[in-house]
Amino acid sequence: MTVETWLEELSEPICQWHLAHAPIGRLGVIVDGVAQIFPVNHVVDEQTGHILFPTNARTKMHAALAGTQVAFEVDGLDEGGHSAWSVLVVGRAEEVTDAEEVERAAERRLALWAVGAYTHWVRIVPERITGRRISVIE
Amino acid sequence: MTVETWLEELSEPICQWHLAHAPIGRLGVIVDGVAQIFPVNHVVDEQTGHILFPTNARTKMHAALAGTQVAFEVDGLDEGGHSAWSVLVVGRAEEVTDAEEVERAAERRLALWAVGAYTHWVRIVPERITGRRISVIE
Repeated sequence: MTVETWLEELSEPICQWHLAHAPIGRLGVIVDGVAQIFPVNHVVDEQTGHILFPTNARTKMHAALAGTQVAFEVDGLDEGGHSAWSVLVVGRAEEVTDAEEVERAAERRLALWAVGAYTHWVRIVPERITGRRISVIE
Repeated sequence: MTVETWLEELSEPICQWHLAHAPIGRLGVIVDGVAQIFPVNHVVDEQTGHILFPTNARTKMHAALAGTQVAFEVDGLDEGGHSAWSVLVVGRAEEVTDAEEVERAAERRLALWAVGAYTHWVRIVPERITGRRISVIE
């Protein structure tokens, strides 16, 4: 059996589409010198392209975000499982304090990945967005 | 509308089950001081509990793994999208040089996320495994 695989870089519009439609994204931060990954329920603000999610001030996540660069990733398998795609964002994380921006995001967000009361929203301002798709023919 | 959410910690056997059955895992590493997330097609070695995946010596991924602690994450949505789970592993990354161990892993791995020729396998030796499930009732 011959297995052939190939790699495509995804264009920026395709990356943006995946970012906006993936139900779960993953935040990559450094905590005590070790990379950590937290799933988050994000939304993309259509006006700014920023990626927003709610968090709780008491969590490590919130602490880790204070003024640092972070990673954000979405991925998925296409029909039949013969191709897989991923998009990686590297950007600046900031707390969102604008009430209108929070309201826009909160209206569109699913309720998972945020238990109990949370009072903070974080935005990721993308600095670099890359994506790729890997396909396999057997 | 009242939305109620609750959080459960997952037991170690449940975490292990998710690690073994998730089709895609995500490796979290630090590259040039910034967290990065790479999807990988992993397998769990049933004999050792180690998490293995193939990589290419030329990639940043391989460089980032040399003798450091890494994160590894799997997640998913349960039926109906009303609960979501995630498992986070923090552990040591090592290159696999044992031919039998590579063979056991290669037999079970799906072919995605590894394009072209690769000659290296990496194992993650878990040091800490945590998991949680978040559920929502609307």
